[in-house]
Amino acid sequence: MIPSRLQALRQEMAKRNISVYIVPTADFHESEYVGSYFKARKYITGFTGSAGTAVITMTEAGLWTDGRYFIQAAEQLEGTTVTLYKMGEEGVPTVDEYVEKALQEGQIIGFDGRVVNNTWGKKLSEIAEKKNGKLAVDEDLIDLIWTDRPELSKEPVRILGVEHTGKTVTEKLTEIRNVMTEKGADIHLLTSLYDIAWLLNVRGNDISYVPVVLSYLALTKEECIWFVQEEVVTEEVAAYLTENHIIAKPYNDFYEYVKTINADATVLMNQSVVNYRICNSLPETVKIIDELDPSVFMKSKKNEVELENTRRAHLKDAVAMCKFMYWLKTNVGKIPMTEISASDYLEGLRRQQEGCFDLSFDTICGYAAHGAIVHYAATPETDVEIKPEGLLLVDSGGQYLEGTTDITRTFAMGPVTQEMKTNFTRVLRSNMHLANARFLYGCSGVNLDVLARQPLWEANLDYKHGTGHGVGHILNVHEGPNGFHWGRKAYVYPLEEGMITTDEPGIYIEGQYGIRLENELICRKGEKNEYGQFMYFEPITFVPMDLDAVDASQLNETEKKYLNDYHKAVYEKVAPFLSEEEAEWLKEYTRAI
Amino acid sequence: MIPSRLQALRQEMAKRNISVYIVPTADFHESEYVGSYFKARKYITGFTGSAGTAVITMTEAGLWTDGRYFIQAAEQLEGTTVTLYKMGEEGVPTVDEYVEKALQEGQIIGFDGRVVNNTWGKKLSEIAEKKNGKLAVDEDLIDLIWTDRPELSKEPVRILGVEHTGKTVTEKLTEIRNVMTEKGADIHLLTSLYDIAWLLNVRGNDISYVPVVLSYLALTKEECIWFVQEEVVTEEVAAYLTENHIIAKPYNDFYEYVKTINADATVLMNQSVVNYRICNSLPETVKIIDELDPSVFMKSKKNEVELENTRRAHLKDAVAMCKFMYWLKTNVGKIPMTEISASDYLEGLRRQQEGCFDLSFDTICGYAAHGAIVHYAATPETDVEIKPEGLLLVDSGGQYLEGTTDITRTFAMGPVTQEMKTNFTRVLRSNMHLANARFLYGCSGVNLDVLARQPLWEANLDYKHGTGHGVGHILNVHEGPNGFHWGRKAYVYPLEEGMITTDEPGIYIEGQYGIRLENELICRKGEKNEYGQFMYFEPITFVPMDLDAVDASQLNETEKKYLNDYHKAVYEKVAPFLSEEEAEWLKEYTRAI
Repeated sequence: MIPSRLQALRQEMAKRNISVYIVPTADFHESEYVGSYFKARKYITGFTGSAGTAVITMTEAGLWTDGRYFIQAAEQLEGTTVTLYKMGEEGVPTVDEYVEKALQEGQIIGFDGRVVNNTWGKKLSEIAEKKNGKLAVDEDLIDLIWTDRPELSKEPVRILGVEHTGKTVTEKLTEIRNVMTEKGADIHLLTSLYDIAWLLNVRGNDISYVPVVLSYLALTKEECIWFVQEEVVTEEVAAYLTENHIIAKPYNDFYEYVKTINADATVLMNQSVVNYRICNSLPETVKIIDELDPSVFMKSKKNEVELENTRRAHLKDAVAMCKFMYWLKTNVGKIPMTEISASDYLEGLRRQQEGCFDLSFDTICGYAAHGAIVHYAATPETDVEIKPEGLLLVDSGGQYLEGTTDITRTFAMGPVTQEMKTNFTRVLRSNMHLANARFLYGCSGVNLDVLARQPLWEANLDYKHGTGHGVGHILNVHEGPNGFHWGRKAYVYPLEEGMITTDEPGIYIEGQYGIRLENELICRKGEKNEYGQFMYFEPITFVPMDLDAVDASQLNETEKKYLNDYHKAVYEKVAPFLSEEEAEWLKEYTRAI
Repeated sequence: MIPSRLQALRQEMAKRNISVYIVPTADFHESEYVGSYFKARKYITGFTGSAGTAVITMTEAGLWTDGRYFIQAAEQLEGTTVTLYKMGEEGVPTVDEYVEKALQEGQIIGFDGRVVNNTWGKKLSEIAEKKNGKLAVDEDLIDLIWTDRPELSKEPVRILGVEHTGKTVTEKLTEIRNVMTEKGADIHLLTSLYDIAWLLNVRGNDISYVPVVLSYLALTKEECIWFVQEEVVTEEVAAYLTENHIIAKPYNDFYEYVKTINADATVLMNQSVVNYRICNSLPETVKIIDELDPSVFMKSKKNEVELENTRRAHLKDAVAMCKFMYWLKTNVGKIPMTEISASDYLEGLRRQQEGCFDLSFDTICGYAAHGAIVHYAATPETDVEIKPEGLLLVDSGGQYLEGTTDITRTFAMGPVTQEMKTNFTRVLRSNMHLANARFLYGCSGVNLDVLARQPLWEANLDYKHGTGHGVGHILNVHEGPNGFHWGRKAYVYPLEEGMITTDEPGIYIEGQYGIRLENELICRKGEKNEYGQFMYFEPITFVPMDLDAVDASQLNETEKKYLNDYHKAVYEKVAPFLSEEEAEWLKEYTRAI
């Protein structure tokens, strides 16, 4: 099947003189998760994993993917004629290196310019130039051969009231226009689905895990034009748009619209998000202000209404997670239990919670050695039985009508070694040190990260990921500009009141086990005095840190107080929503140590 | 006297049509401390403080200085017709604001272009342009009227052998030339006295507190030209220069030299250090690579020979400081003792140490409320008696043949309040948390600063200064690019092995007392493993943290161990160099708690 698809693609390539065709895993909006219409890379290679890039020449086809998918990809690519390129392995070329090598003098690189962002597009353009070749980006060749392609998702639009958003669309538009005036921008192009959903106070269901509406937006001082599929503009939606002076135009008209922008206009847009075709459709003479979209900062600072809703979502999530932990602890070794069945059970508990309409990402449920694979996703091929011993790492989250959650807990499924306890306690200290930080306003994630790393660094240990990321409100579980990582320039923006960030240090012992403990924290204002505005974090995740894996002798009095205070709050908040048996069990697992 | 000097200056200004003349406190090299030749601002205003800027118009004269000098300046300016402008006070214009207001359409701003760096010079040029005026920077008008001006310092040059520097001048020149090749620079202009002294392995005595030689340096791939006063080039120095292929030319010829640089040359130089006249003497078409001088990075990473010498200097300094502490503790209340007499006594103890040839900066000795003034310098007007109660803060350092030191201790001179003890213990925890940091290579002072701040921030306290600065080797006690401060972009360079940085948190209660505890730390490599290269700090300052001011109940077991281990090292290292009585006393003050 794959070989015949490749053959069809190569015929289309040949017609257009295209020598190298690139098919990434992306939609037109740089979304982290994409809908089924956009699974072109899966269509042309047969590989079903969530990340990967395909490159097809007239004689070869390659798939690039990362470590978590090496086994699965090798199996799925068998017999397809597609070669697996293991990203990050020594001697394996990157996609760009491969493309540069495959491209001969004067040849053409092709890709759908809508699924490549402007930054990557420019790089590919440079590669083509080096070979005196060029790009062909105006057609989606996969679309020509993919006869049974799913339609673009057109899920219903849900309008959020101020009781959910705390701010009307009119207020938000005014704020963005004020920033445009400050910066001297005539027009603002917004293509991030998260930012559009936030700005217009709408939600949908057009991509996986994130309730957004496929659309583009153009904002001037006078007009707000929403380019959206006509089918989703119901009478109710149309009335809402009219009421708020928002003009609806067809989704695909955006590309024609950008061509008509005044040649001397100043355009505010983020070129590392906006796709290559849009950037290339703009009149060449427009002045571009290339920076983070103003909405990125605004949506990251949750207002009191959003925070109150988020707390409610987190309480429901905590109830589901506590019930899950009770189920794990009381059933392991007694009933059949695997990574996938446990994930499914947890999903069921979440969906039983009122207002839960989706997961916020693919659950990571890694038992024993699988826990050490940071982005592990269990597949039927890798799924293993969970035994009454060792550690189970579960990183999961839900989408609720009130907010978005993300939590990781690591559970002792039975006896654990002293080394496991020692490392679990280190991670616990890391998590608590950051959560209990007090700092002056102006500090960013770059400044505070060391608080979480220090308990690991003092033992010559580390985790090769950020300590935390921002979290959206009924939006993407990964959101900027806030986050914790000492080496990332992206995290130099001050932590602002209302920002929600995860706190998720870990220790991963390859081939043996993984530990990660993740809570979400709201940034709050504390005392203001002669030294400045002090800030602190309010935790909103309330699920026990498994005491079966804690070595209390490694905690000092301050750390014990942190843990005991936290567990007291967990019990008080969650117990009322549990059965009597579960509540009794929770009391034990939140006992003071 | 001052009015007649001002009159003479105004006559010279009038001859040249200059309406506003600026006299800063600076030499031609942006040195932090200047020699007596350069005290032009003191000459024209009568104010003797170490910092200040004078601005003279045809009708007014003003002096700008900061808080530590308000009282002294007010007294010294009495009867001079010079107005005191208190920097930082509300409603007080900055120098630039004053100049802009004073300057009328088409008028001329004058200053000696050699004592203003290029960054400030450009700003003043912009102010002149706004008024359609211009600058006059080629003459030093003070020099014309200052008949008994001291000569430029011409102190003997001392050549350091590799037993002090660990690296020959040839090796250093090769390293700099390699960087020039990398960056495509044809010529490198170096005017920082610290960097020239480091590069040529020479020391002198031409400015206060820092043993450097007044000179400029120009380096090409073929030539190294040292522009230095002819009087200091003795036969020995001449031979050393010849041997190392360094050409000596007269100090002032540098300005003519830069005019002759090839118009199409690429010049590597740091425009925020190089003075305005030099930058303006360059052919307009040269390409300038404006960044930190390569020597800044090289000299900050002390080699093993420099480190071993530095440790020896610090041990001598510790002996002097321990003797001082003993003297303070045993004599307070029994013999007359003031801030100045104590400073003098400490200076005497330092100078008794073999190889001590200077202090490394003006000693800060602040008793009680004076301790809260961060840059306090006792003058006869402010000097107070040290009583057998409360806290005394002493920040001081010495220049030794083996290295440069900087240390702060705060002493309980008798009974202290519980609040003082609580705050002293907080500062002690701050100091120790940073000193005991373990971190991955790549971390900078921006990442680690929070370790020192956290014990204060958790009590809504802070100090309004950096936690630490780099320290030179037989050079300036303040040296870049390393340092600790969460908000300073200057400190984003990774902490490298061999860098020496101070660790000096503090708490200052205005009108009552100040606490600061400062040690110097060498950055060292620790374990290297799958996570990267771990780093740690080696302390090189060995003087007790006054246990009379410590509240042990606020220290956890880890912190007690830090302190006890440190005190054990202090005793072992220093006791052999003390009298029997002093050693016995030291044993008590380094006891385990």
